[in-house]
Amino acid sequence: MALTPARTMPGVLELLPLDQIAFQRMLDVIRRNYERFGFLPIETPVMEFSDVLLTKTGGETERQVYFVQSTGALNAEKGDGVPELALRFDLTVPLARYVAEHEHDLSFPFRRYQMQRVYRGERAQRGRFREFYQCDIDVIGKDSLSVRYDAEVPAVIYSVFRELNIGAFTIQLNNRKLMRGFFESLGVTDGEQQTLVLREVDKLDKRGADYVRDTLTGEAFALSTETAEKILAFVQTRSTSLQDAFAKLDALGPGPEAMEQGRAELKEVLGMIRDFGVPESHYLLNLSIARGLDYYTGTVYETTLNDHPQIGSICSGGRYENLAGQYTKSHLPGVGISIGLTRLYWQLRDAGLVGTAQSTVDVLVTQMDAAQLPAYLALASELRGAGIATEVVLEGGKLGKQFKYADRAGIRFVIVLGEDELAKGVVTVKDLRREDQFEVQRSELIKTLRVELAQAEVGA
Amino acid sequence: MALTPARTMPGVLELLPLDQIAFQRMLDVIRRNYERFGFLPIETPVMEFSDVLLTKTGGETERQVYFVQSTGALNAEKGDGVPELALRFDLTVPLARYVAEHEHDLSFPFRRYQMQRVYRGERAQRGRFREFYQCDIDVIGKDSLSVRYDAEVPAVIYSVFRELNIGAFTIQLNNRKLMRGFFESLGVTDGEQQTLVLREVDKLDKRGADYVRDTLTGEAFALSTETAEKILAFVQTRSTSLQDAFAKLDALGPGPEAMEQGRAELKEVLGMIRDFGVPESHYLLNLSIARGLDYYTGTVYETTLNDHPQIGSICSGGRYENLAGQYTKSHLPGVGISIGLTRLYWQLRDAGLVGTAQSTVDVLVTQMDAAQLPAYLALASELRGAGIATEVVLEGGKLGKQFKYADRAGIRFVIVLGEDELAKGVVTVKDLRREDQFEVQRSELIKTLRVELAQAEVGA
Repeated sequence: MALTPARTMPGVLELLPLDQIAFQRMLDVIRRNYERFGFLPIETPVMEFSDVLLTKTGGETERQVYFVQSTGALNAEKGDGVPELALRFDLTVPLARYVAEHEHDLSFPFRRYQMQRVYRGERAQRGRFREFYQCDIDVIGKDSLSVRYDAEVPAVIYSVFRELNIGAFTIQLNNRKLMRGFFESLGVTDGEQQTLVLREVDKLDKRGADYVRDTLTGEAFALSTETAEKILAFVQTRSTSLQDAFAKLDALGPGPEAMEQGRAELKEVLGMIRDFGVPESHYLLNLSIARGLDYYTGTVYETTLNDHPQIGSICSGGRYENLAGQYTKSHLPGVGISIGLTRLYWQLRDAGLVGTAQSTVDVLVTQMDAAQLPAYLALASELRGAGIATEVVLEGGKLGKQFKYADRAGIRFVIVLGEDELAKGVVTVKDLRREDQFEVQRSELIKTLRVELAQAEVGA
Repeated sequence: MALTPARTMPGVLELLPLDQIAFQRMLDVIRRNYERFGFLPIETPVMEFSDVLLTKTGGETERQVYFVQSTGALNAEKGDGVPELALRFDLTVPLARYVAEHEHDLSFPFRRYQMQRVYRGERAQRGRFREFYQCDIDVIGKDSLSVRYDAEVPAVIYSVFRELNIGAFTIQLNNRKLMRGFFESLGVTDGEQQTLVLREVDKLDKRGADYVRDTLTGEAFALSTETAEKILAFVQTRSTSLQDAFAKLDALGPGPEAMEQGRAELKEVLGMIRDFGVPESHYLLNLSIARGLDYYTGTVYETTLNDHPQIGSICSGGRYENLAGQYTKSHLPGVGISIGLTRLYWQLRDAGLVGTAQSTVDVLVTQMDAAQLPAYLALASELRGAGIATEVVLEGGKLGKQFKYADRAGIRFVIVLGEDELAKGVVTVKDLRREDQFEVQRSELIKTLRVELAQAEVGA
């Protein structure tokens, strides 16, 4: 039989086991912190009905959707238009569908987390994934949702990224109402026009202030130099402390209602974030943050790594007016964030900020003598019973080769139990990380390993 | 805008949060036990190239496959035959592809676990799922793999189901070589004929021995009455202890080489399972177990719940000769099992063996007085810092309504911190499960809650 080359599609990230362990640890940290803040897990099917999935979204998303057909459907429906099923492209639309479908079985405010893969049929290129994990939290209110929840979200972000331990980070906040009001005060009242202006302003870092000023005052926008300057000054606003944020918000001067509302919300949120225990060093006001303009309506967030600005936002989100208007008449405002973990992990690995993990296997029990296998198995049972992940060499072979296997597999502790050790009631432990070896009383083994493993965890 | 009805496709199991928690706990138990035995995690993309996925499998699987097309591909390739991508229908084919693709980066024996959803375009019916979790372990050898690994697998099964705590269970073993040799000794040498005989024999429970004997001696099979009786006696063999298993294997009498090999393997495996610490009460010889006849070549396993035989096998698998012959010339024998968790969970819930979980949220901090929010938030921070999952009522409203929310959401402890409590340096804790209420010193709160929560965990 001719061999089929074993290969995966481009645009997916498949990991070797030790990398998978590193990735899994990040997932675990995120989940643990989401749960600590009282978010509840949900999972939704990877497929949704196409008409349910594609109610709201525009052409851009539709071009990126993966459609699904069973063999039967494929044969029956060929050429019949849009297939019945499609893969989710984010977790927000499935959440909207979930909340609308199960509305009467949920308690509001509904606090959910969801960590699943999503699918986008993008053109393959470096750093763009067709399959990637999103780790989302959202709080959904029924009819209304206090702006206080907007202050809780940064507390979750802080808690997650502190424990992920990938370097100093800053949570950056803005408010869409403030932005909208500010643009209105300058006579840029049309939402689409605001979007276009913001798209130009986004080029500030790459092209510089002169380029942006020229564009805004040029044919396409025809703004006055004064207006362009005001816009540039606005979007370059960053606070250095909570007091400074308040001062800079006040210094914007009076504006239309939307601006006043946005300013009041930002002040309440910024002040309350501190009450949630987030240090002032870890969040600031950044009036350039806009996010999806047609979706977010109030507070918006981005989070960046201080020493790696090139990575961009590692966690973004904001407040929206109505989650599921396409499915239900209920008014469901919410606030949430998303961590795109596949891309983040890939970037962190690229930047050398996460390495290959040590194995989840703590101990390898070697096989010196096949006749002693029952003793090795009994020892392994004991260790497993104490929660220590243990592999036993069942195949045998030279001891040197067994050590080599442990080393290559990233297993730290190797146990040797030979005739000598059995007679003396001891165990020889080889610590491959410290390149050290010691003998320990059999009765002390679990205690000793637990101490070593606990220390390693703290140190990691 | 007309509303789109929010709904999911048939054949998927979407859970409400408290059920999702119960399900997630089962996943966690399985994963923890897999890791304890030294299995390493991998995850593969949900999509594979169709030609890679469908090399080996016959028409049955192909009819059940879901094919995937991005919008672009859909427009370009309409009517062009089999789409380029398809969803995995199990975790075995992706494992074969993974091992073949990454062969030179893996250490052998390669011990992997994988817990992901798989997809089958089945006709929707009660208890059949189109999307379901499989939780697999496999040990893959390079060139060879000791039969000792066949004894390790039941130890993992025992460990998983003991901790899942869903009732008494029995791991049942057989060996394909023994079966094949036995049939050869009766003159039924053709593999396909053996399959057909076994299919008839499978009807034993439903149709009774007379029916099966009549069929085997009838036109289609034309076996002698004596042969039919021997087959019936063989497949009805069950052991009651390890010694009994040995005795029953010996009582089969001498046979061709395959039978002797199978008998020797079974004896070694059955004996060694005991060395792995599995009580004799939890495993037995069952010579009717066949499993996928074209795939498994040695030891085969099924696991059943003693008090719920109607559920069928809750964990099955066995030894196979060569994992990835379609992708690589390397000879990769292996042994593994799979737990179909979605179906199992659904059946256990149906049988009342798993209920809705308590919330992952341990504590709700109520809001008596909005002015005291900073104190509530500080208290919540403290609790979260101690690993206690805590939600704070940010919205306010009547205290009675807040209690009701906690009750409905399955949150056990509700904390009240009013003026009185703040002045006295205490906290009032309402235990909604015990319908009890107590006051505790603020400084003792974490310790008290930890004790209560630890007790609840042990009791659960």
